Amino acid sequence: MSTATATETNTLPAHYGRLLELARETQLIGGCASMLGWDQEVLMPSGGIAYRGEQLALLAKMHHEMNTSQAFSDALAECESDSELTSDPHSPSAVNIREFRWAFDRRTKLPASLVEEEAKLSSEGMHAWKEARAKNDFSMFSPSLRKIIDMLRRKAECYGWGEGGEPWDALAEDYEKGCTAEWVASVFTPLRERLQGLLDDVMGAAKSPSNAFNEIELPVEDQKRFVKMVAAQFGFDFDRGRLDESTHPFCSGSHCNDIRMTTRFHVANINDALGSTMHETGHGLYEQGLLAKYIGSPMGDSISLGIHESQSRMWENQVGRSESFWRWCEPKLKEHFGKDVAGLSFDDVYGGANVVKPDFIRVEADEATYNMHIMIRFELERAILSGDLDVDDIPAAWNAKYKEYLGLDVPNDASGCLQDIHWSMTSMGYFPTYTLGNLYCAQFFEKAVEDHPGMHEEFARGEFGSLLSWLRGNIHEHGQRYRAAELCEVVTGKPLSADPLMRHLESKLRPLYGV
Amino acid sequence: MSTATATETNTLPAHYGRLLELARETQLIGGCASMLGWDQEVLMPSGGIAYRGEQLALLAKMHHEMNTSQAFSDALAECESDSELTSDPHSPSAVNIREFRWAFDRRTKLPASLVEEEAKLSSEGMHAWKEARAKNDFSMFSPSLRKIIDMLRRKAECYGWGEGGEPWDALAEDYEKGCTAEWVASVFTPLRERLQGLLDDVMGAAKSPSNAFNEIELPVEDQKRFVKMVAAQFGFDFDRGRLDESTHPFCSGSHCNDIRMTTRFHVANINDALGSTMHETGHGLYEQGLLAKYIGSPMGDSISLGIHESQSRMWENQVGRSESFWRWCEPKLKEHFGKDVAGLSFDDVYGGANVVKPDFIRVEADEATYNMHIMIRFELERAILSGDLDVDDIPAAWNAKYKEYLGLDVPNDASGCLQDIHWSMTSMGYFPTYTLGNLYCAQFFEKAVEDHPGMHEEFARGEFGSLLSWLRGNIHEHGQRYRAAELCEVVTGKPLSADPLMRHLESKLRPLYGV
Repeated sequence: MSTATATETNTLPAHYGRLLELARETQLIGGCASMLGWDQEVLMPSGGIAYRGEQLALLAKMHHEMNTSQAFSDALAECESDSELTSDPHSPSAVNIREFRWAFDRRTKLPASLVEEEAKLSSEGMHAWKEARAKNDFSMFSPSLRKIIDMLRRKAECYGWGEGGEPWDALAEDYEKGCTAEWVASVFTPLRERLQGLLDDVMGAAKSPSNAFNEIELPVEDQKRFVKMVAAQFGFDFDRGRLDESTHPFCSGSHCNDIRMTTRFHVANINDALGSTMHETGHGLYEQGLLAKYIGSPMGDSISLGIHESQSRMWENQVGRSESFWRWCEPKLKEHFGKDVAGLSFDDVYGGANVVKPDFIRVEADEATYNMHIMIRFELERAILSGDLDVDDIPAAWNAKYKEYLGLDVPNDASGCLQDIHWSMTSMGYFPTYTLGNLYCAQFFEKAVEDHPGMHEEFARGEFGSLLSWLRGNIHEHGQRYRAAELCEVVTGKPLSADPLMRHLESKLRPLYGV
Repeated sequence: MSTATATETNTLPAHYGRLLELARETQLIGGCASMLGWDQEVLMPSGGIAYRGEQLALLAKMHHEMNTSQAFSDALAECESDSELTSDPHSPSAVNIREFRWAFDRRTKLPASLVEEEAKLSSEGMHAWKEARAKNDFSMFSPSLRKIIDMLRRKAECYGWGEGGEPWDALAEDYEKGCTAEWVASVFTPLRERLQGLLDDVMGAAKSPSNAFNEIELPVEDQKRFVKMVAAQFGFDFDRGRLDESTHPFCSGSHCNDIRMTTRFHVANINDALGSTMHETGHGLYEQGLLAKYIGSPMGDSISLGIHESQSRMWENQVGRSESFWRWCEPKLKEHFGKDVAGLSFDDVYGGANVVKPDFIRVEADEATYNMHIMIRFELERAILSGDLDVDDIPAAWNAKYKEYLGLDVPNDASGCLQDIHWSMTSMGYFPTYTLGNLYCAQFFEKAVEDHPGMHEEFARGEFGSLLSWLRGNIHEHGQRYRAAELCEVVTGKPLSADPLMRHLESKLRPLYGV
């Protein structure tokens, strides 16, 4: 495997050095914006909001100008015509040039008028959506959504899509390069069918795990220390990152040596804080695992939202909801919280982290049913963009799918098709990355356990280094050397499939529910 | 009093609107840098330091380019030739144009080579100073200091100074526009003579306040809540600012609606945390009192370091060490800390906040002796720059002055002429702003009490609004309408003098020490 070192850029041609330097300057500004965005979410006083908006708008403008500059374009073209740099398609230079080109073309394909229209519709749309959700009235949102969909179809036309493809493909590229609806459907369909079988069995089971663990109240300050301990145990480096609080947990930062994660706390339900923290820690470990020497270039950047989600789900679900993790964590919990949790058995905490219960709300869903929420949204947005589903028919179609896949009667649109912000902010093609993440995650984890058969015994001792090393070497350190689907084949030897995720869910849930 | 409103800029000529817009963009970038600097001091993980340096360097470069751009220069020149804008010298437009010109000329007077030389010498100097201080060896620092002084003399030549003036004047302008060594000396000399008389009496006194208050240990978390309560009581708006912790307390922010203060805590000595907090709150109240409509222009900016310090010292000393403040604060202290402070009398806390004790270290000095430390530095740096004092003779000259003014035998250079970082980072002309701040502060406060004779009774009830309103109306809201010395005359009707500060110190310390 060839890697560029700090000195390599000195021996490489001047035009490539120029390209990297321009990209690095652009990234410096992007990182400033990211830090100020973090500050805004985490601790900025409310009075700062208007001016912060102006600061971020100016940085975004500068970032865009730098990213689309003639100097950058010229340097990129010069590098592309230099076969020394591109002959080995997986060399750092070839990877960087390939992905710089993809991004540059993408940025320059949209007319400024459309970019402006999207910003305006997004702002209007989120406002209308908030009102509609609060008043539980889809008709208050539908005019905005209709305009958004019309704009998105034109946006898709500007980008274009592959032969035999469809508009959805063009939009999904922003989140998952090279992803098509047809391919997603080919993986999702078997997943849905098998998942439905599992859920039917689980829902019909006579036995179910105790929910007691999710109902105890624990002091927030103690929870903070506990989840921070778990993140550190997983390998998050607090000299190169932080964990703070925000309403909606997220992970950002300006580069691999300064990663900012957030989580949230409720007095009742430490599982929410713990799950959020382990999830964001997965994102954070990925970002900390990118190589500092590649900062500012695709070789130092994460691959896609799906691969990012594979890392967050890895630590949240494959590790954090595993029996072996709880073998280590349950005694720690008792040591830390004392009498408040003394009455909980191992089965209470391990089972409590794995309760399955179909419900209307995606963000509160368990590990298994979560994917149903995503698949419903994917099927709907695909039909919306192709014109097969009219805006006015969304609520009925939504409710029908919730009945069919999860057996639920959606009580109202606020708990139904108005629950997510994504479409209102013009994001279509985004949702599937959540389930793609779960699929990649399960497939990677199966391979990691195959490579390190003793991994679960290590988890039970609180040792997570083997998994982290495996992820570092197989995924993190590659940056964007491979695209998502290719990475999966390189790492696991197989294309992405529903099998590993289903094996994972079946082998865990059937014993817990005695089905 | 004429003020520019948001609409006024629409009715004013286009070239003035352009000037303000360019300045506002420049300020947006400056504010980003300021926020990232705050983040670095307060919470950034250590791993982020190198990249943050790159981010700040790029923002500084952009800021400088915007600040010295041809577009800005052209707009400024056009505005200057428009007599409508400049005819009333205290109108917002005239003030902005005057101070934009001052700053633009100042920035463009130095050759790039000198700017670079200064940055290099500052970095080298601070490094050498740290080593020299740690090893208590002035000779390790003197070669750097010699180079710095040589550079500063050339820098002063580039700036130039007024007739009858001296190099020191040119350098001091960066911190206190229009300030000359001769003028400073004319205020400092009577101050020093009278202060020495007072200190002689105090040091010879048979009676002295109890130091018990400064020795009790109080939980840091409780201290945090307490000092925050005091800052809020003074009027600091926590919806437009924050109070955090850092090793060296400071106040920054990106504009009047987002002010970031820090303080520090020790288990023993809440007076340190309280004093630091009240000091920074004074800076913070000044910044929050600048008018949002003027953000990005001199009308929305503070006047000078001396005036800024007058505000911090106002709340730290005139309020925070006053008998009336402690009439309110002492019961609050008992309510908050309970049994830990139950044994302290009113005299213990009020007296404890006003102990006078000459010592070697400026940053630990009390309200009275602090000024001696400053005057010693001013006299020395003036002599150094004029060539009257050679670098090798600094330690002896330093020690002689400490003996003469404070009666102290300096034990070594680490506790003597190596204690401050300022000269090593090429700052000469900065020190006097601390004592100028104390002088302005006392003179302003005397006038405020004259205008509101019941102010001290209000303090005793925990009411600080009259003072804040007075400061807002007389100082904060004017931005840079007046320069420091002029402001003093406009507000108090008299030029700056040592009398108010001496009256303040005499009337407080003589009763406390029974002299």
